Amino acid sequence: MLMYDIIDKKKKGGELAKDEIEYFITGYINGDIPDYQVSALLMAIYYKGMSDTELLDLTNIMAESGDIVDLSGIDGIKVDKHSTGGVGDKTTIAVAPVVAACGGKVAKMSGRGLGFTGGTIDKLESIPGFKTLLPKEKFFEIVNSIGLSVIGQSGSIAPADKKLYALRDVTATVDSIPLIAASIMSKKIASGSDKIILDVTMGTGAFMKNIDNAITLAKKMVAIGEGAGRETAAYITNMDIPLGIAAGNNIEVIEAIETLKGNGPEDFTEICRNFSASMLSMAGKGSRKECIKMADRAIEDGSALCKLAEMVKMQGGDERYIYNTSLFEKAPYSYKWVSESDVYITKMDTEQCGRTAVILGAGREVKDSPVDFNAGIKFYKKTGDFVKTGDVVAELYSSDKEKLNAASYYIKKAYKMGSTKVKKEKTIIAYISKDNIIKY
Amino acid sequence: MLMYDIIDKKKKGGELAKDEIEYFITGYINGDIPDYQVSALLMAIYYKGMSDTELLDLTNIMAESGDIVDLSGIDGIKVDKHSTGGVGDKTTIAVAPVVAACGGKVAKMSGRGLGFTGGTIDKLESIPGFKTLLPKEKFFEIVNSIGLSVIGQSGSIAPADKKLYALRDVTATVDSIPLIAASIMSKKIASGSDKIILDVTMGTGAFMKNIDNAITLAKKMVAIGEGAGRETAAYITNMDIPLGIAAGNNIEVIEAIETLKGNGPEDFTEICRNFSASMLSMAGKGSRKECIKMADRAIEDGSALCKLAEMVKMQGGDERYIYNTSLFEKAPYSYKWVSESDVYITKMDTEQCGRTAVILGAGREVKDSPVDFNAGIKFYKKTGDFVKTGDVVAELYSSDKEKLNAASYYIKKAYKMGSTKVKKEKTIIAYISKDNIIKY
Repeated sequence: MLMYDIIDKKKKGGELAKDEIEYFITGYINGDIPDYQVSALLMAIYYKGMSDTELLDLTNIMAESGDIVDLSGIDGIKVDKHSTGGVGDKTTIAVAPVVAACGGKVAKMSGRGLGFTGGTIDKLESIPGFKTLLPKEKFFEIVNSIGLSVIGQSGSIAPADKKLYALRDVTATVDSIPLIAASIMSKKIASGSDKIILDVTMGTGAFMKNIDNAITLAKKMVAIGEGAGRETAAYITNMDIPLGIAAGNNIEVIEAIETLKGNGPEDFTEICRNFSASMLSMAGKGSRKECIKMADRAIEDGSALCKLAEMVKMQGGDERYIYNTSLFEKAPYSYKWVSESDVYITKMDTEQCGRTAVILGAGREVKDSPVDFNAGIKFYKKTGDFVKTGDVVAELYSSDKEKLNAASYYIKKAYKMGSTKVKKEKTIIAYISKDNIIKY
Repeated sequence: MLMYDIIDKKKKGGELAKDEIEYFITGYINGDIPDYQVSALLMAIYYKGMSDTELLDLTNIMAESGDIVDLSGIDGIKVDKHSTGGVGDKTTIAVAPVVAACGGKVAKMSGRGLGFTGGTIDKLESIPGFKTLLPKEKFFEIVNSIGLSVIGQSGSIAPADKKLYALRDVTATVDSIPLIAASIMSKKIASGSDKIILDVTMGTGAFMKNIDNAITLAKKMVAIGEGAGRETAAYITNMDIPLGIAAGNNIEVIEAIETLKGNGPEDFTEICRNFSASMLSMAGKGSRKECIKMADRAIEDGSALCKLAEMVKMQGGDERYIYNTSLFEKAPYSYKWVSESDVYITKMDTEQCGRTAVILGAGREVKDSPVDFNAGIKFYKKTGDFVKTGDVVAELYSSDKEKLNAASYYIKKAYKMGSTKVKKEKTIIAYISKDNIIKY
């Protein structure tokens, strides 16, 4: 078998056989196949796509390139959750406790962010003492005893994906739908959960800019998950506006806590109720309708908040922060953007919002750079809202005054104002399961 | 400027600016831009193409990556000729002497073959003593005194093309029409001639498999040449059958000599008359019609043959071989394929013919491997011919008995026979100049 022939076959639109995919992935990992042949193949895949069979093979081979986590040491049905990322995405921090409070099991390995804010792991680390590097036995023990644990993803999960992603990142082949699908699903499959709920974000602040691409990606990931024997479903959610009010690290944790207390923003609360219900229903806890009620109850009775505090405590964190969010450190510098006129917000460039959060220090400009836990943005007003003169549109936080000044300029470029009221944005756009697409 | 952005722009179908092309070519040559980014860009170019402006910029920048040969030391208008390659392509060896005999100037730098047989340089080296590595001054002196010289292309001609071609060769991006056009034309422009005649071969034995691709390539090369201030025209010729009877090294030289004596095969003679006439007409020697007559006369009166002998002598070769071709060494092993029935030849797979010549030793299987000057094939019967029982269809030559045996098997796979007569193949299919496409 020759790598040349594999590139040429895909270039002409052919379907790669399983042994061809295995040959190139294994050869690339071993160093037998050079970067420059792989990047040519990736670009050909960008244009020619991959069939469902190819994708399942690629995903499985990437998953099998490292450790496959065996979660059978944890009782019950384990349900995982993954988002393709966006601005203000603190969903795991609220959803996992709700699911655990209702008897579900969430054994989640999460990533650090390279995107607009820190990843879930960074956000959780803004709770003093919270540890995200735990030995497998401890991780299992926590999930078995309280129903949830969120730890950092180990380097031995899907190393083929890691190497391929690094190459895609410098060859403009990140935005290939099949490659995104295989990348995400290889890690999900290697992470060992039985069921998977996906959040495919869509809009100006997401990889997927339009509904067709988002549906394609969601369908491909659901097909891969089901093909690998994991029940999988996907929500398509709106990233034309930031999710909730807060985008940052500790301010997102605080927003997740408020949501678990029943005081969350409307859009984020809707996401939490729906995601939790789907995960619980997949775990066999009842119909979706019943599970929505269960989720609501877990918030009302405080049991979900308790679960979060339990997890924080068991992972070495200071659980007092969960009950008293005023303990969280505040950014030394902040800026309130006050409106000077009466206007409607007609549009938000959410990618620009995210970039502004990175400028403030909330996300990483380059790999391995530190994250400012206190930095971030609160979007008090979003698309569809009316802003009166003197209203605060947004508030910015940073530990660095110069960064704050720069960000204060850029945040204004992310909003379009006008004299005409526009409709508020939907939060959930569609739900895709193996047999069904429900548009909201 | 970032290479990432250049890849991404081309990937989305954008037009690269001159400074972007310069950045990537210069960076690649310097080693600042890695192979894997360039191969991703090449694959994107394969799918998205290049505009005429991009192509001219790319070609000029590749030409300028090395020496630009200044032929002003040679009097008169220098006309170059290049073929995209095929089986039995000995055209330069016959055309250059005809043009020189009629007062044209041919200062040609030619390549070694990596294809189906040796290149022109390998073929000429089958004449004992013939030198293809000459200092520039000697090269100029020969052209000034007798009107022609054919030498090997120096390594300092378009080194960017050399490096890019090596990468394309292992990343399945050789068959990109704009990249082929830029590769050929960068060398032609760097080689310094004033006018250029191109032979774009088309068919089963050529890179271009169909007329549309051949016309596209021809038009692109003509546009580049004209854009660079060199009058350029292109013939599209038929490579669905081998050109002439002989494919090999010394047997092709012999066929070229026979053609200069007026005894050439019909198709090859047609090519020679037309190419010579176009080159002469470009050099201002008269109308095409007048130049055809001049070319015919140069063959009839023996002056073209004399020119070849003069060149051979001045380049250190034994010119007696030109007047007495029986001096050429013969292959120790040969095989006559004799027909066992009365049939028509309905089709030839010329690529398979070429591969058979490589098996015999006439071409290179890998770079820098030696060429067997005596190896080759004579195609006595070609598509459209009737073959009687006992007729010799083809004869094979090699210095290696095992290779001969293998080739004897493969040559039969290259022919399709049938009971119905098919039309003979055309030789010249089209002629493309700046303003005109003439279909034959």
